[in-house]
Amino acid sequence: MIIKSSDAVPAKPVTMAGANRVTMRMLLGPLEQCPTFAMRKFTVEPGGFTPHHHHDYEHEVLILSGRGEALTPDGTKPLKPGDVVYVPANEMHQFRNSGAVNFEFICLVPARVHAPCAG
Amino acid sequence: MIIKSSDAVPAKPVTMAGANRVTMRMLLGPLEQCPTFAMRKFTVEPGGFTPHHHHDYEHEVLILSGRGEALTPDGTKPLKPGDVVYVPANEMHQFRNSGAVNFEFICLVPARVHAPCAG
Repeated sequence: MIIKSSDAVPAKPVTMAGANRVTMRMLLGPLEQCPTFAMRKFTVEPGGFTPHHHHDYEHEVLILSGRGEALTPDGTKPLKPGDVVYVPANEMHQFRNSGAVNFEFICLVPARVHAPCAG
Repeated sequence: MIIKSSDAVPAKPVTMAGANRVTMRMLLGPLEQCPTFAMRKFTVEPGGFTPHHHHDYEHEVLILSGRGEALTPDGTKPLKPGDVVYVPANEMHQFRNSGAVNFEFICLVPARVHAPCAG
């Protein structure tokens, strides 16, 4: 069993095109040889957002703190702590901080997204 | 995209042998047709615990609130909010509330665990 504090995991800037003021912590993933899915924690600073994009895998998200919103194919939806979000594969999406403090959430993806061969 | 509050998901008692004072919310799983993994939220009341058991799939856990401990092959380890836990397949484990308020965490498993054919 591996136990660690989220805070002990380094937060790395998300440099993907379209991201602004976002860092990611890889909480459980390749380092732990997680076979099926990876757990990442994102911190979006006030005014920040993730890329507005789509990809061939799903997201499962739990909002931890702050206030935010999701840009969905049906418009913008508010997000608060305790909300869960399912983004199916190939659906356009973006997460934005809509508040004055950091907006934090975990976002899980299939393990193949972070597999060494996934580049 | 599916968005819902964790609180809006019914909490069902965990009736598995060895569980005591535990409820589970299926936050994202078969209902959403999640293809790879399922997100569940567990609430362990003071004095409660999950079964001390093992199985052929892994857990990825994030502690949300309260105080608890994990019984591992190397002894008992304390758990606090923000801690993440990786339990590999086939390793004995148990989660216990060690505090005076509810101990809450999310625990993800491969989708096959909750597939209709998994019984």
